[in-house]
Amino acid sequence: MPCISLTTDFGLSDEYVGVMKGTILSVNPNATMIDITHQVDPQDVLQAAGLIRSAYRYFPAGTVHLVVVDPGVGTGRPVLTAEGNGHRFVAPDNGILAPLRQDGVIRTVHRVENGDYFLHPVSSTFHGRDIFAPAAAHLSAGLSPAALGPAIPSAEMADLDLPTPTFSASGDLVGAVLFIDHFGNLITNIDAGHLEKWRNSARREKLMIKIGSHRIQGLSSSYESAGFQKPLAIIGSRGYLEIAVNRGNARQVLGAGKQDRVRISKTE
Amino acid sequence: MPCISLTTDFGLSDEYVGVMKGTILSVNPNATMIDITHQVDPQDVLQAAGLIRSAYRYFPAGTVHLVVVDPGVGTGRPVLTAEGNGHRFVAPDNGILAPLRQDGVIRTVHRVENGDYFLHPVSSTFHGRDIFAPAAAHLSAGLSPAALGPAIPSAEMADLDLPTPTFSASGDLVGAVLFIDHFGNLITNIDAGHLEKWRNSARREKLMIKIGSHRIQGLSSSYESAGFQKPLAIIGSRGYLEIAVNRGNARQVLGAGKQDRVRISKTE
Amino acid sequence: MPCISLTTDFGLSDEYVGVMKGTILSVNPNATMIDITHQVDPQDVLQAAGLIRSAYRYFPAGTVHLVVVDPGVGTGRPVLTAEGNGHRFVAPDNGILAPLRQDGVIRTVHRVENGDYFLHPVSSTFHGRDIFAPAAAHLSAGLSPAALGPAIPSAEMADLDLPTPTFSASGDLVGAVLFIDHFGNLITNIDAGHLEKWRNSARREKLMIKIGSHRIQGLSSSYESAGFQKPLAIIGSRGYLEIAVNRGNARQVLGAGKQDRVRISKTE
Repeated sequence: MPCISLTTDFGLSDEYVGVMKGTILSVNPNATMIDITHQVDPQDVLQAAGLIRSAYRYFPAGTVHLVVVDPGVGTGRPVLTAEGNGHRFVAPDNGILAPLRQDGVIRTVHRVENGDYFLHPVSSTFHGRDIFAPAAAHLSAGLSPAALGPAIPSAEMADLDLPTPTFSASGDLVGAVLFIDHFGNLITNIDAGHLEKWRNSARREKLMIKIGSHRIQGLSSSYESAGFQKPLAIIGSRGYLEIAVNRGNARQVLGAGKQDRVRISKTE
Repeated sequence: MPCISLTTDFGLSDEYVGVMKGTILSVNPNATMIDITHQVDPQDVLQAAGLIRSAYRYFPAGTVHLVVVDPGVGTGRPVLTAEGNGHRFVAPDNGILAPLRQDGVIRTVHRVENGDYFLHPVSSTFHGRDIFAPAAAHLSAGLSPAALGPAIPSAEMADLDLPTPTFSASGDLVGAVLFIDHFGNLITNIDAGHLEKWRNSARREKLMIKIGSHRIQGLSSSYESAGFQKPLAIIGSRGYLEIAVNRGNARQVLGAGKQDRVRISKTE
Repeated sequence: MPCISLTTDFGLSDEYVGVMKGTILSVNPNATMIDITHQVDPQDVLQAAGLIRSAYRYFPAGTVHLVVVDPGVGTGRPVLTAEGNGHRFVAPDNGILAPLRQDGVIRTVHRVENGDYFLHPVSSTFHGRDIFAPAAAHLSAGLSPAALGPAIPSAEMADLDLPTPTFSASGDLVGAVLFIDHFGNLITNIDAGHLEKWRNSARREKLMIKIGSHRIQGLSSSYESAGFQKPLAIIGSRGYLEIAVNRGNARQVLGAGKQDRVRISKTE
């Protein structure tokens, strides 16, 4: 049973997602469709890129991941299908797949430009329905990506400016809040592996995490290990440092927002 | 694999939609269920009518479209099942299906009143679960609509007052914002075909679109063809004139709302 | 086709629900997954307990109900799987299943602790993905609960403090608003059977329902039987007394909130 995952910024209040699924089912009645989310912030390519990067690996091998956050719809921006690690991706060529390329996941890339597989007439505002959905459906039914368009080198894919942590003059690690989840957890761009490496460069020092005027001592191993409504730092399920509040909402309790700076110092 | 689409105003925070789906699956374990949306504004029959009118055609032939926006639940209002263009619809008789009748889609209509197919006891507040879901499930499993109740002439179905564009004394075309989507795009009641016909009556004049104090020159072919955060007019994916803002939210940027007037003049 | 229902407080804006479903599908590609809701108020165990209690029975026999509202994730709180009435439940041991035990639904209970069935490495923040989803998937594929861990007496399951109605000195029945649904309907903890029994203790008196400064005469049999935008009391689809407003939102119109007192008097 071929699986298609869907990630868009279409929201759930209009008919857009349902229409995409109806279109997919019209092409491949056996497709199993799983929503990753349709609530990417409108036109936030960076957020979508982070979501699919961390989510894809939990799906069965052979899954087609459809990612449509596409402010350039109706312009000449290419549509791509890429393959790697047994997974397939369909997305606009606007940087959404760049982190997967950077991680070494992407092996082959094709342009999606064979109109024989599109829904006609192709609108200028809803390629999700007219191009992306039918392309993903045909791929899930076994169509070769080469039938959709020519192979291109992955180096030709659009890039994405991924904010990465830096070091302060005093040797602190300085990252930022990249996403805020439904619980109000602040997900930073500080990778657990990166943090561990930096921390162990000398010896296993204690850490002090600063965000705004708040200071958090050390990493916790569970939300409940902090006091009630107290902030804590923890390695989250995506493998990045998160700031959370036990039984509370860190965004609200700490008054924090996207792009806020998170600074980590080693202490005695 | 029989498909059932679902359109309701039930929202996603309660158990209502899940319970309808569990009920459907209890009757027809092979049903594939696709949400169109459950976020129709509460009791907004007009909005639901517009959604199903534009969405149904993208589903596989044979799909049963369940539309439950039903302020009259628990009163004597009939429940209907209608058929046309290879699709089947199940909805309260409150005008939701009127645009499909007006478009000539509806061919046959039956009342749904055979209690043998209902869930008992039938509650007075949740016919979605007790009547609509089992009826749709049985139809998707191949039950003849005649088993659910008697055929009625489609002319007996409830009507719906669909606001249509008018002409001003000076010959302008005057429509209105009918819906606002998740992106803040303002979807008018001005049909693309209608607009094209009016525009070509003399020669292919340029158009000026006015909404509130804003003026937009001509139609765009993509969102990005307007300047950053600038308003534009475009034929949207439903085939109606939309007012949008490139990389922005037209509702917010233009301060616009449902029912706002949109006026189109021909210019030199 | 084995069915898994999902009830969480994960929301729909992150990848969490999609990742759980991908994980389930990786274990059991034939699972049919139905969302009950993912919008339980964050960490509101009581609300989740009420939802699954009223929703489970509408699903096909054999359904595995996955309920993850789990503020204690990453601590030592056990994970349970329970069985009764032909349904199976997987949830943290924090009281979510207590109403089902109280209703006599639960027959057998097992701890979920066999790491052979978990996703590794097990994170400390997302047991939904690493423990609950694979456990539910394996159960839906036919795994015996005994393979997941030892049986325990249901009396050992965590308890839940369920607010129940009381009687005033003057003999009034005093309940409270327990939930507010998407329509703004106020769902109380006053069970229809309980109410009927109390009311009939003498003779079938008329009822007067008071909430805040509002008084409602008698029970209605449909929303529309009250005047436009007028409040009414009705037995809702869960079998509890609800306060609603015809074609309106009772929360807004009555200015009511969760835990507000609802008092019922017998009148002549």
